[in-house]
Amino acid sequence: MNRIALSGIKPTGIPHLGNYLGMIRPALDLAKDYRAFYFIADAHALNQLRDPAELDRLIFEVAATLLALGLDPEKVTFFRQSDIAEIFELAIILAAATPKGLLNRAHAYKAAVDANLAAGRDGDAGINMGLFTYPILMAADILLFGSHAVPVGEDQRQHIEIAQDIAQAFNRAYGEVLTVPRAVIGETIADIPGTDGRKMSKSYGNIIPIFAPPEELLKHITGMVTDSRPPERPKDPEQDNLFRLYRFFAASAETETMREKYLHGGIGYGEVKKMLFDVLERTFGEARGRYEKYIGDRPFLEGVLRYGAVKARAVGAPMLANVRKAVGIRSY
Amino acid sequence: MNRIALSGIKPTGIPHLGNYLGMIRPALDLAKDYRAFYFIADAHALNQLRDPAELDRLIFEVAATLLALGLDPEKVTFFRQSDIAEIFELAIILAAATPKGLLNRAHAYKAAVDANLAAGRDGDAGINMGLFTYPILMAADILLFGSHAVPVGEDQRQHIEIAQDIAQAFNRAYGEVLTVPRAVIGETIADIPGTDGRKMSKSYGNIIPIFAPPEELLKHITGMVTDSRPPERPKDPEQDNLFRLYRFFAASAETETMREKYLHGGIGYGEVKKMLFDVLERTFGEARGRYEKYIGDRPFLEGVLRYGAVKARAVGAPMLANVRKAVGIRSY
Repeated sequence: MNRIALSGIKPTGIPHLGNYLGMIRPALDLAKDYRAFYFIADAHALNQLRDPAELDRLIFEVAATLLALGLDPEKVTFFRQSDIAEIFELAIILAAATPKGLLNRAHAYKAAVDANLAAGRDGDAGINMGLFTYPILMAADILLFGSHAVPVGEDQRQHIEIAQDIAQAFNRAYGEVLTVPRAVIGETIADIPGTDGRKMSKSYGNIIPIFAPPEELLKHITGMVTDSRPPERPKDPEQDNLFRLYRFFAASAETETMREKYLHGGIGYGEVKKMLFDVLERTFGEARGRYEKYIGDRPFLEGVLRYGAVKARAVGAPMLANVRKAVGIRSY
Repeated sequence: MNRIALSGIKPTGIPHLGNYLGMIRPALDLAKDYRAFYFIADAHALNQLRDPAELDRLIFEVAATLLALGLDPEKVTFFRQSDIAEIFELAIILAAATPKGLLNRAHAYKAAVDANLAAGRDGDAGINMGLFTYPILMAADILLFGSHAVPVGEDQRQHIEIAQDIAQAFNRAYGEVLTVPRAVIGETIADIPGTDGRKMSKSYGNIIPIFAPPEELLKHITGMVTDSRPPERPKDPEQDNLFRLYRFFAASAETETMREKYLHGGIGYGEVKKMLFDVLERTFGEARGRYEKYIGDRPFLEGVLRYGAVKARAVGAPMLANVRKAVGIRSY
């Protein structure tokens, strides 16, 4: 339990079922095996969000969501990135030891450049430095706490490799100060379908929020796209959005029963929608009550985050002092 | 006196006569017309210095030098960049609003790329992110304190323009929060000769430290390169290093007398060297006594810098809070 795992969540949209399955649930599971650090990556969000009221709202929605889903701020260190000034200072110090070529090769930046070039624009058109330097700030998030393990999806593997490279470059220049982190690549659940059958994503407008009130949840589910086969016709469950979502939340036996009904006929989409609603209610109904209580209590949420910040700085401040000392800047 | 001027000095070498004339004296003069902020730019120095003991030593040498030369820490706000965490956080926030193209066009970066390409290397070979993002950190230095004026040499004009562009980009995105600074381009004294006649510069190894002890100062001056004309031969004063340095420190009447002697014969280089030594002793001898006292008293220097940090943060912290509020991050 001495090994540290760190996981960040960007407050760029209201948490939805895709976030829950892909990120939140695996992150919450971390606390079983590691000393877990979770943070709300609000400084990273600035690269996508330009609406201050929306960012402010999302920070607290994410905090309330995690707490409602069972995050225990006593057991884990749960904080907001912007409360930890040490992260930003470390990012600046690391930059001086980070080869620019490392960031030129970052996938997210290269994809943006390629899109520009394909459209006949300058490669860097519309690209901000926040996007380009993102991997340095992420390295600072990770390295400040001496994180051993960073659970990420396959798409984030390169960012961890960059953090490793930065840590190694720093250590080569100044001695063994930084812990080189390891990526823990989780099984990516790529096929969480949104209401239109495509991958659930804010950018597709097809999400189902984790804590939508029942009437809204029902509306989302009712609106899910299906074909028009009548109940008695057999259907391939793997081709149906309702089934593909249902199985993530139903018990195994329930899923098997449902699969049989799909294969052999005898269930209509209306009934499946009702059962999907029920299983989501069963999974999140109680937590939604907590969410609604928390989201209306900003002083409580702020207090939890500030408490987490104190715990995070107790680890991060000595690390920054070591880094400063290594480069020749005293902290005493 | 309400208008703020800000000036930074990088602790990358022992302060020499070129620094004194080109930067330190003009900066000290600022306090007459502005509310002056001076800082030791130790985070910027990380891009050039990789020796922690040397950086640590230079930070205090620069501090002692400025104090010995008359900087009054009561009248001006004199601090060390790395004591102001708000600068680093502001740099990260600004990055998200800074177009990458702006930095692609920065002269210092482009010069490094051109040198690489000319040598047949990859354009970014050996270039660190600290160099590339330098103008963002410099913008944060300037903007955190709402600086109106930034006195710089012509070579730094573009950095101020970048700071202006960043401030305007931020203000466009988030409202009028940042003061757009103005460059005050000082008359550049380009022809301060070093001991070998080239521009005095650490990289040429031809410097004369401001506070070299008398015997070392004499050695530097004795070693200055001249031609071999005997005393009685007339000489062009503008072509002689000794004269070109002497005139910066001698009174006008002394300089004119010396010029006459050069033009009409009657003075030898040995005698000029003696007079140069005397005028430097007159200028810096008393201050050197203060320097030697200060440099041996780290608690005093540290105390002065910490006092300055408190004053600097009293201005910088509310500005950062405004910036955070503008982007949607609460400080309360």
